[in-house]
Amino acid sequence: MLKIHLVWVEKTKDAWLRQGIDHYLDRLKPFAQPRVIQVRSKRKAGAFSASQVMYHEGKALLMALPKDCFVFALDEKGKMLTSLEFARLLERLELQGKRKLAFVIGGHLGLSSDVTKRAAFCLSLSPMTFTHDMARLILLEQLYRAFTIKAGLPYHK
Amino acid sequence: MLKIHLVWVEKTKDAWLRQGIDHYLDRLKPFAQPRVIQVRSKRKAGAFSASQVMYHEGKALLMALPKDCFVFALDEKGKMLTSLEFARLLERLELQGKRKLAFVIGGHLGLSSDVTKRAAFCLSLSPMTFTHDMARLILLEQLYRAFTIKAGLPYHK
Repeated sequence: MLKIHLVWVEKTKDAWLRQGIDHYLDRLKPFAQPRVIQVRSKRKAGAFSASQVMYHEGKALLMALPKDCFVFALDEKGKMLTSLEFARLLERLELQGKRKLAFVIGGHLGLSSDVTKRAAFCLSLSPMTFTHDMARLILLEQLYRAFTIKAGLPYHK
Repeated sequence: MLKIHLVWVEKTKDAWLRQGIDHYLDRLKPFAQPRVIQVRSKRKAGAFSASQVMYHEGKALLMALPKDCFVFALDEKGKMLTSLEFARLLERLELQGKRKLAFVIGGHLGLSSDVTKRAAFCLSLSPMTFTHDMARLILLEQLYRAFTIKAGLPYHK
């Protein structure tokens, strides 16, 4: 079964967002094995500038990536896709034998260029800027949507 | 104070989404008077085709619109904006003396053309398709973001 690693910075703060994320993680389970990996930030350690925090978060995200993953970086400057194009892309990766995907979401400062360089695909969810926490929920909903499209199923919330 | 009418079909189903929506409605209150208007759908009444349901939902949404509103319709085929462009657009409307805005979101079938024709602006949140319930949350977060941009405030979740 396809493994999907969701790699992001720190725990999701709001309880309602955590519930929404769990809702779609559960919905994904018939289609894939999703696994959330949360890395620590130095943001609250003090004595670090914004760029240092971003650099360290980037290092931690890269370290947390399992081997041989096809890596998506969520990035405002990335490529936008329709939900259908996203589903077709996941389908193509599966046909190419990619069994492990990772989706990396930066902290509130965004992703360091170390991470976007490592990524095989930089994905933008919208021209609008979302909080990094909301991006988690929106990505998971799109993953679920993609699997229902791939399977030719009607969409069930 | 600017009035923002959020006009959509039926109650938001998931409790976590309702909490997220309430979270951003509260956050909006220092900047505007948001008001949610929920219209009924004939979806569960049976004996109606999808196009009939959409037609009736459209009529109900139009009926629910307060007078003299600048109407935004949320529509996949609408115009996409960055968060900054959206903030600037709201700013321009305010300068033009528009004191009442309405944002209309269709049901799970989308909006009828009666509604998109009535709208002064058709807005698309992303090339990706979101559920109509998620679109409520995303729109409210973007409205809050727009007001923090307009006010030159740092963004607070």
